Amino acid sequence: MNHVSPPGSPTAKPTVTTGPLPASRKVYKPGIKHPDIRVPMREIELHPTANEPPVTVYDCSGPYSDPAIKTNIAIGLPRIREPWITARGDVVQYEGRPVTAADNGFVSEGKKAPEFPNLQRPYRAKDGKAVTQIAYARAGIITPEMEFIAIRENQGRAKVKEAMLRDGEDFGAEIPDYCTPEFVRNEVARGRAIIPSNINHPEAEPMIIGRNFLVKINANIGNSAVTSSMEEEVEKMVWATRWGADNVMDLSTGRNIHNIREWIIRNSPVPIGTVPIYQALEKVNGVAEDLSWDIFRETLIEQAEQGVDYFTIHAGVRLPYVPLTAERTTGIVSRGGSIMAKWCLAHHKESFLYEKFEEICDIMRMYDVTFSLGDGLRPGSIADANDKAQFAELETLGELTEVAWEKDCQVMIEGPGHVPMHKIKINMDKQLKECGEAPFYTLGPLTTDIAPGYDHITSGIGAAMIGWFGTAMLCYVTPKEHLGLPDREDVKVGVVTYKIAAHAADLAKGHPGAQERDDALSRARFEFRWEDQFNLSLDPETARLFHDQTLPKEAHKVAHFCSMCGPKFCSMKISQDIRDTAAEGGFGDADKGMADMAEKYRSGGDLYMPTEDVKVEAAE
Amino acid sequence: MNHVSPPGSPTAKPTVTTGPLPASRKVYKPGIKHPDIRVPMREIELHPTANEPPVTVYDCSGPYSDPAIKTNIAIGLPRIREPWITARGDVVQYEGRPVTAADNGFVSEGKKAPEFPNLQRPYRAKDGKAVTQIAYARAGIITPEMEFIAIRENQGRAKVKEAMLRDGEDFGAEIPDYCTPEFVRNEVARGRAIIPSNINHPEAEPMIIGRNFLVKINANIGNSAVTSSMEEEVEKMVWATRWGADNVMDLSTGRNIHNIREWIIRNSPVPIGTVPIYQALEKVNGVAEDLSWDIFRETLIEQAEQGVDYFTIHAGVRLPYVPLTAERTTGIVSRGGSIMAKWCLAHHKESFLYEKFEEICDIMRMYDVTFSLGDGLRPGSIADANDKAQFAELETLGELTEVAWEKDCQVMIEGPGHVPMHKIKINMDKQLKECGEAPFYTLGPLTTDIAPGYDHITSGIGAAMIGWFGTAMLCYVTPKEHLGLPDREDVKVGVVTYKIAAHAADLAKGHPGAQERDDALSRARFEFRWEDQFNLSLDPETARLFHDQTLPKEAHKVAHFCSMCGPKFCSMKISQDIRDTAAEGGFGDADKGMADMAEKYRSGGDLYMPTEDVKVEAAE
Repeated sequence: MNHVSPPGSPTAKPTVTTGPLPASRKVYKPGIKHPDIRVPMREIELHPTANEPPVTVYDCSGPYSDPAIKTNIAIGLPRIREPWITARGDVVQYEGRPVTAADNGFVSEGKKAPEFPNLQRPYRAKDGKAVTQIAYARAGIITPEMEFIAIRENQGRAKVKEAMLRDGEDFGAEIPDYCTPEFVRNEVARGRAIIPSNINHPEAEPMIIGRNFLVKINANIGNSAVTSSMEEEVEKMVWATRWGADNVMDLSTGRNIHNIREWIIRNSPVPIGTVPIYQALEKVNGVAEDLSWDIFRETLIEQAEQGVDYFTIHAGVRLPYVPLTAERTTGIVSRGGSIMAKWCLAHHKESFLYEKFEEICDIMRMYDVTFSLGDGLRPGSIADANDKAQFAELETLGELTEVAWEKDCQVMIEGPGHVPMHKIKINMDKQLKECGEAPFYTLGPLTTDIAPGYDHITSGIGAAMIGWFGTAMLCYVTPKEHLGLPDREDVKVGVVTYKIAAHAADLAKGHPGAQERDDALSRARFEFRWEDQFNLSLDPETARLFHDQTLPKEAHKVAHFCSMCGPKFCSMKISQDIRDTAAEGGFGDADKGMADMAEKYRSGGDLYMPTEDVKVEAAE
Repeated sequence: MNHVSPPGSPTAKPTVTTGPLPASRKVYKPGIKHPDIRVPMREIELHPTANEPPVTVYDCSGPYSDPAIKTNIAIGLPRIREPWITARGDVVQYEGRPVTAADNGFVSEGKKAPEFPNLQRPYRAKDGKAVTQIAYARAGIITPEMEFIAIRENQGRAKVKEAMLRDGEDFGAEIPDYCTPEFVRNEVARGRAIIPSNINHPEAEPMIIGRNFLVKINANIGNSAVTSSMEEEVEKMVWATRWGADNVMDLSTGRNIHNIREWIIRNSPVPIGTVPIYQALEKVNGVAEDLSWDIFRETLIEQAEQGVDYFTIHAGVRLPYVPLTAERTTGIVSRGGSIMAKWCLAHHKESFLYEKFEEICDIMRMYDVTFSLGDGLRPGSIADANDKAQFAELETLGELTEVAWEKDCQVMIEGPGHVPMHKIKINMDKQLKECGEAPFYTLGPLTTDIAPGYDHITSGIGAAMIGWFGTAMLCYVTPKEHLGLPDREDVKVGVVTYKIAAHAADLAKGHPGAQERDDALSRARFEFRWEDQFNLSLDPETARLFHDQTLPKEAHKVAHFCSMCGPKFCSMKISQDIRDTAAEGGFGDADKGMADMAEKYRSGGDLYMPTEDVKVEAAE
């Protein structure tokens, strides 16, 4: 995403990455209550010698990884949810708001990104009805979205159900052994989980964010002030979901913002979030003081009609909190937070986001846009973690959560930032308490400030921990954080790092079935099924590449040794022998069995295998 | 280290990496009790506009980063500790054991690595005396090593002493506000800390490993069965210490093992550890059953005479524990553990390491080689974490710790392995309890099995956490773990990742002064002192490279904006304005001050700066 495409190129070529991951097959599971739903999963085939069924894993990649589906970004993805939405009888299709020059940042005609060619008229709720998943859930309705999610969350869980030994510490979460549609409904009704699902983004495959479900991750993309190719932006989104991004936020600024967002949403199989104040600021030429409720309201409707699934709204940055940041080491680091702080200061008025919050709710519920209540005062350094400004805002977010729930809106809460390890759990506990268990959505947190260039790691540590403690979605950080713009490889590294954090959290919470993939990979490792080890990993390409850098020959991928101990001595082989002895009852009658085994070993010689063309190195 | 140098090349070129890190200057602080000691530290100079003194950081890189010292790997480093050792009057210099063909793995003359040209006769204790730091500590003696360490551990602590607000959760550690030589002595006497310091490695700069000191990291190197250039191995060690490795383990196997080790030790400013059973196995052509106490004993003496500072000894792998591994998913993954398991099974006898443990102690105390009691039964997968085999061995390691302490030997304990987050603290608590607070030295732990290629990250998460809980030294894992041999870049990534984990742990423990570097870097970030931000980071080269990939021009390194928000809108600038307002008392008389400020902002215009040649992208 660092390379520049000519803006406004007239033809949209389907340049996105497609095709299955290695040894993987897309499968679809039907619903029972809603038999027409098709829940996508990825099956990873194992080597015949494994004598094991394929491993089923959660799949965010949409139709792009299914060779049976031909995608075309100029047409967009199939609108799978449209029949479900219209069947509820509570929406109308209408003309929608006309696109203005301001919407695209007053871009000149020559530099304008093309309009998406296959525009549909938007939907909205009839007569001020709430068309939100929380409204349906509270009414006792199990939507197709909810059943879809129940099936999706049960990855591999049915298989392990009988043998399941729940293990883990979930800090008061209530994760069921098996996820039912009714459980999904109940969690959404209680506000403990959200289903980001704007009625104008029917292309998205339903997913859920909540403490009692698998931990999710978000990747950020966004067009820049100069580069504005829609193919490039669509590819960023496709690429991020290919490696496991459950959600994508479009943080675009600059020109062409409206048109490019349309391309992204029409082609996205995952929910899309935005920060509407960014676009509103473009509409007033970047002068924060010139922002107004009317401009912001217009922008919300514009984006809701396009299908944005959740909005970051920094309504907790209140006027009286701004002075609390004066003594900070790094002040206000949130862009949205600083925009609102500037507005408050310039007008010496309470934030219009806070004052008009109920009106914002009324818009959100017309389209089922979920609130992502922004942490505009999150700490930007270890020194500022857990300070008064941060916690004052969090308390306000709790207050606003109640208002939104009252209005039948879905809500999640954004969290820090830079926080040392010993202060992380305090954040989680306070968020649960202040915000009535609404899902927490955190950026990292970064556990130290001293490693620019490695902030995917400083933050991956904090993300894994806060995910364990109860955060429902982790916003990724790439290696370029604080330094520059992530390129394609940075996006992949960020996504994979956060998949690690999310999965480590699922394991530690004792999420049922989460360990299945670890166990399958470890068995493959133990049995020297190299191909299976690569294919089961989060990033098969890198695993294979690293292996081949040391042992490039094809024969080495079936070799019963690795480059760590080399062919001469293999600890795995000895373990296999121990296991065989146990299987033969050799340890049963301890003394006799052991004596027999001693004899067997003495006669059997050693485990050395002659190989000369392999470089080997010891690793303890 | 993946590239092959011609083995046995006759000339030793000083090909190691030398020179200071950016903006860094080596300084040396003298002792008070021992005025001749010179404790190295690195001072990072800041930009004049910072108006701050240089930031002092811990420095493991030895003379190589000091341009005032000319190093030559064919001569070796200055033997700084030799006068301290001889002054104690309890050692004798002697001829030492002759080198045999077996010591170099029976390498043929043509392939033999050259002997180190500047060999010295070894020292050993007089008349079975204990020449260990623990023996001196118990006798109430503050050695020069101890004073050296006290000064070294106090990095920046004096400066912040008055302003120091201790913050953190240390889980029962007893970290003092200021580290005195007497505190060091007391911790060593109690066995809660170790100073790896073989009397035959006088080149090493004293350092300490213990829960009440800064968390340390270890990097592994090792020559392979075919590559055996001593320059290459010395460079691996120098490279690892340059980026912050506090200790280095030489895990060599194959040929030339003796000669190459000599080159490494003579040139190493940090303690060197080994796993002597690896070399012993080479001496019996890899047939584990042919190992014997005599061969092992010979190897211990050989390596002790060379100056190895700590030995991994897998004496806890007892015969009755071997069957406990039969049902494991990944059996025994420790190379040393499997060697001993095989020996026990083949002979149906208790391990000679366990049976001869007191005799091993007698050798260790003659040279002050520290025990690193190996975890031969550590789990190799999430499925095997915290199982009976692992904990049975840990209990035995506790028993052996008592024996070693009785013999005036220094001891640390090795730990896992693969452990999900919720099982990590159990490991730490059990280790403290079973092993009488002897320092814990862990590999990771890896918090999931599903990310080969990213195991520096899966393990960095676990390392940060267990370091926080009390582990004293973290053994690094590189991205190549499980897949191949680390190259130069992998070693750097592994070291930097583990510096992050160790530092995050220091912060969370509330180690006094640890936050100083974070704060200095965050101030630099807030004030757009880009050069300072790069120079204060753990890896200035990568930080600068990443910045320049987006904003390559020199002018951008003084620009008051970054590529995240771009030149048009800067949240940092707004924070600066808020701070200025506060400084002017603008928030003092709230209503009036705020009204004035509103006026000021309205008249002051916006923060936009015209720039067209910069690509910018939003980041929330």
